[in-house]
Amino acid sequence: MDEVTLESPLDMHLHLRDGDMLAVVAPLSAADFAGAVVMPNLVPPVDTLAALMAYRARIAAACDTTRFSPWLTLFFRAYGYDELAAARSQIIGVKLYPEGVTTNSAAGVRDLHGIDATLAHLEALGIPLLVHGETHGFVMDREREFLPVFRRLARQFPRLTIVMEHITTREAVELLGEYDNLHATITLHHLLITLDDVAGGLLQPHLFCKPIAKRPEDREALLRIALDGHPRVMFGSDSAPHPRSAKEAAGCAAGVFSAPVALPALVELFASHNALPALQRFVSDNAQAIYRVTPPVRRITLARAPWRVPDQYGAVVPFGAGTSMAWQVVART
Amino acid sequence: MDEVTLESPLDMHLHLRDGDMLAVVAPLSAADFAGAVVMPNLVPPVDTLAALMAYRARIAAACDTTRFSPWLTLFFRAYGYDELAAARSQIIGVKLYPEGVTTNSAAGVRDLHGIDATLAHLEALGIPLLVHGETHGFVMDREREFLPVFRRLARQFPRLTIVMEHITTREAVELLGEYDNLHATITLHHLLITLDDVAGGLLQPHLFCKPIAKRPEDREALLRIALDGHPRVMFGSDSAPHPRSAKEAAGCAAGVFSAPVALPALVELFASHNALPALQRFVSDNAQAIYRVTPPVRRITLARAPWRVPDQYGAVVPFGAGTSMAWQVVART
Repeated sequence: MDEVTLESPLDMHLHLRDGDMLAVVAPLSAADFAGAVVMPNLVPPVDTLAALMAYRARIAAACDTTRFSPWLTLFFRAYGYDELAAARSQIIGVKLYPEGVTTNSAAGVRDLHGIDATLAHLEALGIPLLVHGETHGFVMDREREFLPVFRRLARQFPRLTIVMEHITTREAVELLGEYDNLHATITLHHLLITLDDVAGGLLQPHLFCKPIAKRPEDREALLRIALDGHPRVMFGSDSAPHPRSAKEAAGCAAGVFSAPVALPALVELFASHNALPALQRFVSDNAQAIYRVTPPVRRITLARAPWRVPDQYGAVVPFGAGTSMAWQVVART
Repeated sequence: MDEVTLESPLDMHLHLRDGDMLAVVAPLSAADFAGAVVMPNLVPPVDTLAALMAYRARIAAACDTTRFSPWLTLFFRAYGYDELAAARSQIIGVKLYPEGVTTNSAAGVRDLHGIDATLAHLEALGIPLLVHGETHGFVMDREREFLPVFRRLARQFPRLTIVMEHITTREAVELLGEYDNLHATITLHHLLITLDDVAGGLLQPHLFCKPIAKRPEDREALLRIALDGHPRVMFGSDSAPHPRSAKEAAGCAAGVFSAPVALPALVELFASHNALPALQRFVSDNAQAIYRVTPPVRRITLARAPWRVPDQYGAVVPFGAGTSMAWQVVART
């Protein structure tokens, strides 16, 4: 097969940033995707309906939101029922960050045992909970150490839709099998790289992200459920642009910028495993079912035709910069 | 105790480089140390007596070798007995790199089973074998995977002095206990940092090295034998300067430049564990016994007096750049 068409592909975990960066990256996501879940970790975080509506307007000014739905999230804090009820029609979920675990998470949750009232409101209102699931432990153990929190939440709030964001470990994959209300996003890069690619040869700051890429057996486990089209697993790029100057620096910011190469790379990956039929589920259908959303009708066609990934988009170095990819987008309706 | 004097401190694993870099870094090592084992992985590698004598002359031109003994090593290849016998008085050992495992190791050994003849010569001639012990496996497993090679060498060549260079894992520490002809160097940075410090917060290219810093329990194991003054363990900084432009880059070179801060940092570390009496063994006495060398008589005195580590030495960013250290060198004789 030398051509494949994806119906309304979705990116269920995306950083669109703000200001000049928003203007660079939003059109790139809007070109290839019919919708995306937009993270709220701006500075300050998006944690009021007013801030969210203002952010929505800025996103709408940066790209064509009739063809690309930006599904916004509120930054988790203690919210009252009425507050969430008022916001419900404007949000796809609430994103929980433990305090300080990643970029712009200083306002995150310090005490994960003190949040049950808000979680109960989310459950009652049918609002999904999205979670960056890492502890402050040793970098290779952080996700694994966080899994008991997911287990507690899944048991205590059985009707709450819980999304384990950007999972990276075999153990997270296994946990997914235990509770029907647990779901997961998986990034492109965690399907392709391990810590070896980041730090096994020369150190590669453009592959540095949180959670950090793990071991080969972890990548294999992620790949297996993605290629299977597992119904509770969705593509979420976690595409997180930083200017090149913030990446090639003494303290390099975490984040891989993959949005503009995600679909070609996913098609190449799934094709190489003879799993193209599952890609539609991974990149759209599962997400529509889990979140009960209907994106704009889009058709993105890719063909097997090599292209060279640009060295930069604006000031940002993309995943695979300068390399040749086997598939490219040839038509967008 | 607010002052400590080290007798002829030694750095038993050092990269002096060549050319302009040699001119910058050699005087810094010569200031604080009475001697150092100098690595041969130049481009091309130092693997003839003629190349070694020429390198010795360049080192002598860069620093005062009456107060600082540069103990040179030959880059491992298949050597004949006569060749090694002729070189013996000029070298402290032969350094083995598996092919391609680290900076400038492209000429290293591909087949570790084809080297026994040369090893037998080393054993017969009483020339130590220094080994960079890593496989090409997953970055966190490379040292562990290499340990069976050390076990085989220790058994097969019982009178060969084998030095496991810059060990980083608990398992290497355990192996040291099994064979009397195994020895080890430990760097400053592997006593102080784990992968968390490299990639747990922002990514820190100046802490990126090979072997990569491992887990907390590995660091604890290294610290224990260093603080104990274990008789088969020596300080070897593996100080490996790269210009800042090669570190803060899309492909960051491996190496931590610690030579000019090593003694202050070691004194602070040992003092904080009430282990200062063991430091003389770790930083000099053990090495003199293992290698049967007598360095120039030097006395380096450090006092508890804060100083700020420079941001750069020439084009090189040192370990701890810009931070305050509690001890400083106050007298050098």
